[in-house]
Amino acid sequence: MEVINMNIVKIIPILNLPIIKETDDLAGLICEAAERQGTPLQNGDILIVTHVIISRAEGNVVNLDNVIPSEFAKNLAAQYDRDPALIEVVLRESKSIVRMGEGHIIAETKHGFICANAGVDKSNVPGERNVAPLPRNPDESARRIRRRIKELTGRDVAVIISDTHGRALRRGEINVAIGIAGMKPIRDRRNETDLFGYTLRIKQTAIADELCSAAELVIGQADEGVPAAIIRGYPYEKAEESSARDLIWPREKALFI
Amino acid sequence: MEVINMNIVKIIPILNLPIIKETDDLAGLICEAAERQGTPLQNGDILIVTHVIISRAEGNVVNLDNVIPSEFAKNLAAQYDRDPALIEVVLRESKSIVRMGEGHIIAETKHGFICANAGVDKSNVPGERNVAPLPRNPDESARRIRRRIKELTGRDVAVIISDTHGRALRRGEINVAIGIAGMKPIRDRRNETDLFGYTLRIKQTAIADELCSAAELVIGQADEGVPAAIIRGYPYEKAEESSARDLIWPREKALFI
Repeated sequence: MEVINMNIVKIIPILNLPIIKETDDLAGLICEAAERQGTPLQNGDILIVTHVIISRAEGNVVNLDNVIPSEFAKNLAAQYDRDPALIEVVLRESKSIVRMGEGHIIAETKHGFICANAGVDKSNVPGERNVAPLPRNPDESARRIRRRIKELTGRDVAVIISDTHGRALRRGEINVAIGIAGMKPIRDRRNETDLFGYTLRIKQTAIADELCSAAELVIGQADEGVPAAIIRGYPYEKAEESSARDLIWPREKALFI
Repeated sequence: MEVINMNIVKIIPILNLPIIKETDDLAGLICEAAERQGTPLQNGDILIVTHVIISRAEGNVVNLDNVIPSEFAKNLAAQYDRDPALIEVVLRESKSIVRMGEGHIIAETKHGFICANAGVDKSNVPGERNVAPLPRNPDESARRIRRRIKELTGRDVAVIISDTHGRALRRGEINVAIGIAGMKPIRDRRNETDLFGYTLRIKQTAIADELCSAAELVIGQADEGVPAAIIRGYPYEKAEESSARDLIWPREKALFI
């Protein structure tokens, strides 16, 4: 049986990273781990990194014991039986509140992403009272990692920062992109034709989100944390100037709600 | 350099399928194509199939010339400059209309999925005036393919039927699951702990949707149609009784809107 030439896409977990802490050279540690496990980064790879280790490396971790909650945060916390200091951090990260209820706060973050608790995360943050807000500028975080990988290895690698989001109308969370560097987040196929020559009317594929969901298949499956993955074999259009904010659909235009 | 043992997930396109038509043994054709290209189906594989070839194989294709539009369909078509017969097919597939505007109809399908044009698809359907509604019972379509694969190859393969959906609050479409067989659509991680022993509060991962998004990375990239893909190396919990309807979040409960 002959294996014919075809494009198999591979999702490779980055294993055995040390616990990431402030001032760590995250890109360097990822390059080393990838090398050590026999899958060094290659030109054309896409590196997906979960937002929590970005925030940890950037020192963007808040100890709830040092947070003085506002009156509003206390009001909310009392109603929903939550920690007032946690609510305060969520409010500080928020541009607006989309909805509250059943113990959830769905907020619009300062970047414009709509997600639970404005993306403030308790999981995979060391320290009983520590939480990690989203990176301040996830596109810039992605660009910095991309530049550092280029510097260390000479390789041209696209970088995407991922977060886990709920959806308005579907149960369960999926991973999506909140920062990007080196590639476009959307593949625009509006002028392509299908198998039968029919021009696709509407077809903008959110490939950055699909890549993050694909990466979650290895990130989410390990008992110990797997905070990053390489996607290899996916041909993408390079772009020096790009932003995950292009994935935000303005609320006033939302058609599904 | 030693390649250590790790779980790389592979996304394998099914290439060179013939044009699928009514009464074709779709499962059989997929098994043959997978065999021919040197990647025969294995136990534990997940087969992702796009809904359009399911509808074609099931004869669920409508010629718009044979459709008599209702008055309401004609009213809508006039406003949005669309084909009244197409609008009629969309309405026939719909349980309710979620929103209309800018040439879009966002509808709730008879299955309960909320998507543009109630999932009625023009692309990759042969015949100038033909459109393909969603499969009548996508879970049953998935179960039938799964059973047939077992019969032909003896292999235990999970099957997911995918569709391309827009999202309420993010730009671009992604692929999601509308039918499933052989595995659970959601991985419930609510009692698992993280790297630092913290119990995850809310964590239900919509893995069926993530698998469909991963498959799109090979399905969407070919010029000629790639209507199916194998995902290999992803460990999942088997389930004989499952339904993609578990991925539907009731509209009255929607927190993000």
